[in-house]
Amino acid sequence: MLAVHLENGAVTLREVPMPPRPPGHALLRLLVGGICNTDLELRRGYYGFSGTPGHEFVAEVAEADSPSLIGRRVVGEINLACGDCEWCRKGLGRHCPRRTVLGIVRRPGAFAEYFTLPEGNLRVVPDEIPNQRAVFTEPLAAACEILEQVSIPRDETVAVLGDGKLGLLVALVLNAHGYAVRLFGRHEEKLGIAAHVGIATQLAGGEEPAAQYGWVVEATGNPEGLRLAAAMTRPRGTVILKSTVHEAVSIDAAPIVVNEITLVGSRCGRFEEALPLLAHKRIPLEEMISARYPLREAAEAFDHADRRGTLKVLLDAGSTPDGR
Amino acid sequence: MLAVHLENGAVTLREVPMPPRPPGHALLRLLVGGICNTDLELRRGYYGFSGTPGHEFVAEVAEADSPSLIGRRVVGEINLACGDCEWCRKGLGRHCPRRTVLGIVRRPGAFAEYFTLPEGNLRVVPDEIPNQRAVFTEPLAAACEILEQVSIPRDETVAVLGDGKLGLLVALVLNAHGYAVRLFGRHEEKLGIAAHVGIATQLAGGEEPAAQYGWVVEATGNPEGLRLAAAMTRPRGTVILKSTVHEAVSIDAAPIVVNEITLVGSRCGRFEEALPLLAHKRIPLEEMISARYPLREAAEAFDHADRRGTLKVLLDAGSTPDGR
Repeated sequence: MLAVHLENGAVTLREVPMPPRPPGHALLRLLVGGICNTDLELRRGYYGFSGTPGHEFVAEVAEADSPSLIGRRVVGEINLACGDCEWCRKGLGRHCPRRTVLGIVRRPGAFAEYFTLPEGNLRVVPDEIPNQRAVFTEPLAAACEILEQVSIPRDETVAVLGDGKLGLLVALVLNAHGYAVRLFGRHEEKLGIAAHVGIATQLAGGEEPAAQYGWVVEATGNPEGLRLAAAMTRPRGTVILKSTVHEAVSIDAAPIVVNEITLVGSRCGRFEEALPLLAHKRIPLEEMISARYPLREAAEAFDHADRRGTLKVLLDAGSTPDGR
Repeated sequence: MLAVHLENGAVTLREVPMPPRPPGHALLRLLVGGICNTDLELRRGYYGFSGTPGHEFVAEVAEADSPSLIGRRVVGEINLACGDCEWCRKGLGRHCPRRTVLGIVRRPGAFAEYFTLPEGNLRVVPDEIPNQRAVFTEPLAAACEILEQVSIPRDETVAVLGDGKLGLLVALVLNAHGYAVRLFGRHEEKLGIAAHVGIATQLAGGEEPAAQYGWVVEATGNPEGLRLAAAMTRPRGTVILKSTVHEAVSIDAAPIVVNEITLVGSRCGRFEEALPLLAHKRIPLEEMISARYPLREAAEAFDHADRRGTLKVLLDAGSTPDGR
């Protein structure tokens, strides 16, 4: 079968054997994959990963222990937890220290014709959701994670910094949940996606208001973002950190202490929260798709995804049940 | 009257006129002052302050609108808030954007024979509390602030990093409130103060445990502290930032995001929480006094306070009602 291979900064295609299906796992046939910033970071050498990347996917169950799963369209939680430790017992398997992570940590990913995941990780996609929306489940869950971690008062306006994939999804999810959002970004066309569903937007780089917001989400993906977020937050306010910036960020901690600001690191979330949003009218996921490539053009797709201004790039693998 | 004067990094003594007493304010006669790290930072030029420093004090009320205050020993909240804004209405005058701060922000401080504060800022010191304990009210309140901001589960051990004045007080306060504490520091004799009241201690700089603590208080006062604190915190854990380090701290935000760590800036607190602790048997404040100087030797006292390894340096002004 065909599999994307990532090693020493290069994305290539390989013919590899079908993966064996361990007990309790499903064999999955990829329908559509999504390229995430983490995949681009893997290509740059973070996490020391080599092998098949990919953790955003919609797939069809080819083989499984549970007959009811076979033939169904599924998405899947990407953390494979031990199931046994303190974290797993608390339902926080995504922090399990022994976990592997699909296509990220010690585990081949979804950018291949076939791959496996434990059946317990899978969630069946409702029939009315097309692949091109379902493939956003994992990043949508990451956006939803904010609402699991903090309780934002209903009368607050949340400032979201960054109009890349993550910032847009965070703004769309908060807006869909009824929060007032102001999205700050540098790209008029991306801000337009949010503006179309009624989100207030503002071109960044001008006069960001100082110490005004009680809640700020930092999703710029660059080291300046944290400084700006802290400066925009009022005393006793909260900054939610979504960007995994892989360089040392130089911050002055004194204003954070003096103004008693809280910073909350926030990563990936539970699929249960994301699935209902796939059908939400005010989350225009299709508008976030910049390009689609067949799986065998994964190298070109990665290059495209890494170009400035690109939103989501999808990988199409073979025939898809719904043709979209 | 005699007043300490701080300007361009130099501490001098001046003869100045008695301060006028505005309506609603009390005229206070200094009994004992305490030199805080913030005072040393002021001397280094932070906050652009020049004038009389000092915000840790015990004083006797010389004149006041309220007859019941006259002759009483008092301590006082250091923030002079407008009383009128959103923050003040929420009881958070210490974040009032128009506030002045005694001896720190646009307001002469307590290191003078006489100074003034609004009567509403004053708290009467119980008779059984000697000056040398009462002078710790303000830093004790800063330590107590942690418990106002976050709710630490009773079964957790809190790691406190830093055995300077602030770290020791935090460890002592948490211990007095019944929390299990482990204090990490670099000075055996300072750790000993905590150990005497049953706090577990550990010499830092060796093998600090990685990702082990759900709650870590950073009070080292140096930029390395934040990095160490984040590394010692387990996923979904909380770091409370007490150090106001006035230099850019270079941190890698990625582990904070990936491990979903929360950082909480924490500054000064309410005196109401601190006053009951002044009589607490397991808070050996006297052991934290490194030296006492008469007010007129303030320059020497500042030099002493700035020497490595020094804990609290007190300034004695004239006769004290209790002679201590």
